[in-house]
Amino acid sequence: MLESWNDGETKTAILEFVRAVTTPGDSFVPPAERIATFDNDGTLWCEKPNYVQADFLTRRLNQMADDDPTRRTRQPWKALYDRDHTRLAQLLTRASDLTASIGDVFAGITTEAFEEKVRAFFDTAVHPVLGVPYVQLAYVPMLELLDLLRAHDFHVFICSGGGRDFIRVISEEAFGIPRDRVIGSAGTVEYRDGDVYRTKGLELPIAEGPGKPVHIWRHTGRKPLFACGNSNGDQEMLEISAFSLLIHHDDAEREFAYDDGAEKALAEAAELGWTVASMRRDFARVF
Amino acid sequence: MLESWNDGETKTAILEFVRAVTTPGDSFVPPAERIATFDNDGTLWCEKPNYVQADFLTRRLNQMADDDPTRRTRQPWKALYDRDHTRLAQLLTRASDLTASIGDVFAGITTEAFEEKVRAFFDTAVHPVLGVPYVQLAYVPMLELLDLLRAHDFHVFICSGGGRDFIRVISEEAFGIPRDRVIGSAGTVEYRDGDVYRTKGLELPIAEGPGKPVHIWRHTGRKPLFACGNSNGDQEMLEISAFSLLIHHDDAEREFAYDDGAEKALAEAAELGWTVASMRRDFARVF
Repeated sequence: MLESWNDGETKTAILEFVRAVTTPGDSFVPPAERIATFDNDGTLWCEKPNYVQADFLTRRLNQMADDDPTRRTRQPWKALYDRDHTRLAQLLTRASDLTASIGDVFAGITTEAFEEKVRAFFDTAVHPVLGVPYVQLAYVPMLELLDLLRAHDFHVFICSGGGRDFIRVISEEAFGIPRDRVIGSAGTVEYRDGDVYRTKGLELPIAEGPGKPVHIWRHTGRKPLFACGNSNGDQEMLEISAFSLLIHHDDAEREFAYDDGAEKALAEAAELGWTVASMRRDFARVF
Repeated sequence: MLESWNDGETKTAILEFVRAVTTPGDSFVPPAERIATFDNDGTLWCEKPNYVQADFLTRRLNQMADDDPTRRTRQPWKALYDRDHTRLAQLLTRASDLTASIGDVFAGITTEAFEEKVRAFFDTAVHPVLGVPYVQLAYVPMLELLDLLRAHDFHVFICSGGGRDFIRVISEEAFGIPRDRVIGSAGTVEYRDGDVYRTKGLELPIAEGPGKPVHIWRHTGRKPLFACGNSNGDQEMLEISAFSLLIHHDDAEREFAYDDGAEKALAEAAELGWTVASMRRDFARVF
């Protein structure tokens, strides 16, 4: 177990916690209550230089602008056309902007039609730096951690600030996690004419920050026993978990080194004694 | 398998469908796609003379009126005090009335505190006619059907128009269904001060009628392969399922005989060729 983790405090802390809650005694937790939740981007797979879903979205936005060039005068197409990456990132990640900016990008089609578009993306797209298909971007040590938890009767969920229905298309293939165990932000859907259609809205709150415990509760009826994230958006999920693991991206050679967007989480980890996994120190291999 | 089902067309249709989708061949469906969804009230357990949750709610409302008798001049306490059962039923089941009438009945407390109240109810309440604890009100043939599906690698979910967080407290005990496989209508929650609190809102749409396919999609990312219900509120769920089973309450001796609220579903079943289980004819035993 955890063959791709180097021996050390982090690996020991994980193994010791799993042993404690699965061995008869004071710390024992029944299998039904063994909920584990993992953030996706930057936790289970690479999120740099861009979120995988951002690549998917910008391709779709470019296609829409090609179909109707007048769109380039409006957001979010304007930011994309102007190569204003800062503004574009805002438009694609802030809940307040998301519905207005991309609400109708995939609205009005069936959930199956959306799935086909996602599948077509994953069948062809490759990571712009590493040059491999995105579904191969899962961190091997994290896959081993998922296996370890499942082998100890944990119910393992993804809880992503990104798009639930996007990730579900490849969650089984990339992480061995079935669709019904993927929690995340999502567009609204409706039932009509015998089918399920995407609509323009966004399920609120989005599954980021304080929205993560809300989505986890809705989906599982429990708080996590084990949670793992890598950014400020994971803080609240880590706060309500019994064991909290924060992935630190500090390996510029084998992946990317950045604390941007994780400063608060790293500070809280130090303050509350969460376990921090250094990718440089703790991962024997990355991909 | 299905020992408490009498031999006949219904039992044969169920067994034949399960065999077809789990045996290599043209009809085979991979385990990941074997989603089964069951309505709860009137499908998995008895819903007469009242919904189990209605008993829970009226006890709470009576308690609140005892604590503050001025509440009896306002709804829903007034209807309860006046014994106006028709109005009370409206107030407790219509989505448009629910938030206004009971939004603050359990708001402001943690999800754990709510669970304790539900647990206390189930520990003491008994069915007003049958005289047994509510958790013993599951229909034995239905429990066997759940077992049959699980034994064939189906992912078995409850999808209830009633309260998700209410049912989850006893879903494992009463039906062998873990909390994260209970889908249903629910009050909103929020994260604050390190815990998850109930708030006054209602997650929309409620998981009834066209809301069922929406909730099932949100939770599982799929349409059901097998669905089972008993009322008009289950029609849309049965429409999107490959195999659709409608429970018909026609056994006045062993349970209750009523078509009220199921007229449209029974008509659609006849029209579309859904399988209808007659409790009188197909159930060798009920409880």
